[in-house]
Amino acid sequence: MSNSSSKQKLNVSIYGQQYLITGDESTEHIRHVASIVDEKMKEINHKNPFLDTNKLAVLTAVNIVSDYVKLRERAEQLETLLKEAKSEKENND
Amino acid sequence: MSNSSSKQKLNVSIYGQQYLITGDESTEHIRHVASIVDEKMKEINHKNPFLDTNKLAVLTAVNIVSDYVKLRERAEQLETLLKEAKSEKENND
Repeated sequence: MSNSSSKQKLNVSIYGQQYLITGDESTEHIRHVASIVDEKMKEINHKNPFLDTNKLAVLTAVNIVSDYVKLRERAEQLETLLKEAKSEKENND
Repeated sequence: MSNSSSKQKLNVSIYGQQYLITGDESTEHIRHVASIVDEKMKEINHKNPFLDTNKLAVLTAVNIVSDYVKLRERAEQLETLLKEAKSEKENND
């Protein structure tokens, strides 16, 4: 998703600022994503009330990427387990 | 991960700024995460050169959450497929 001028456009509010988000995704997906970022920024601000908004946003991105990397490892594990289960099934058929 | 004062601490550079990151994660994980955020911010800045750093960081978080939500859906699908494969195997055993 980006805020460049093409595709579907949607105005969302994140941490008191308006953002024009564009993308191929559904409006439901974009609103859901915006609400997660908004909540995460509020949560991190609550823990670190003296951070400026810029650092808060970067730290929010850091937290989300950390979760993303862990989830990607889990998804890779699941892909491997699924392949193993499938090949075991084929050998038994 | 946070920048509060407990646990392991690591200084990382993201988009020209220093951040003291703390967390239970390995230094390798923290460095990897910081480099992803740094690259993503540069990539989005390249596409939107007139964004201020604050909006750039928020937009980076939005992009990463968007990928995260899609990956989570994929991981949930994989969990379901794996459960099905396991229960099929149990029925055949």
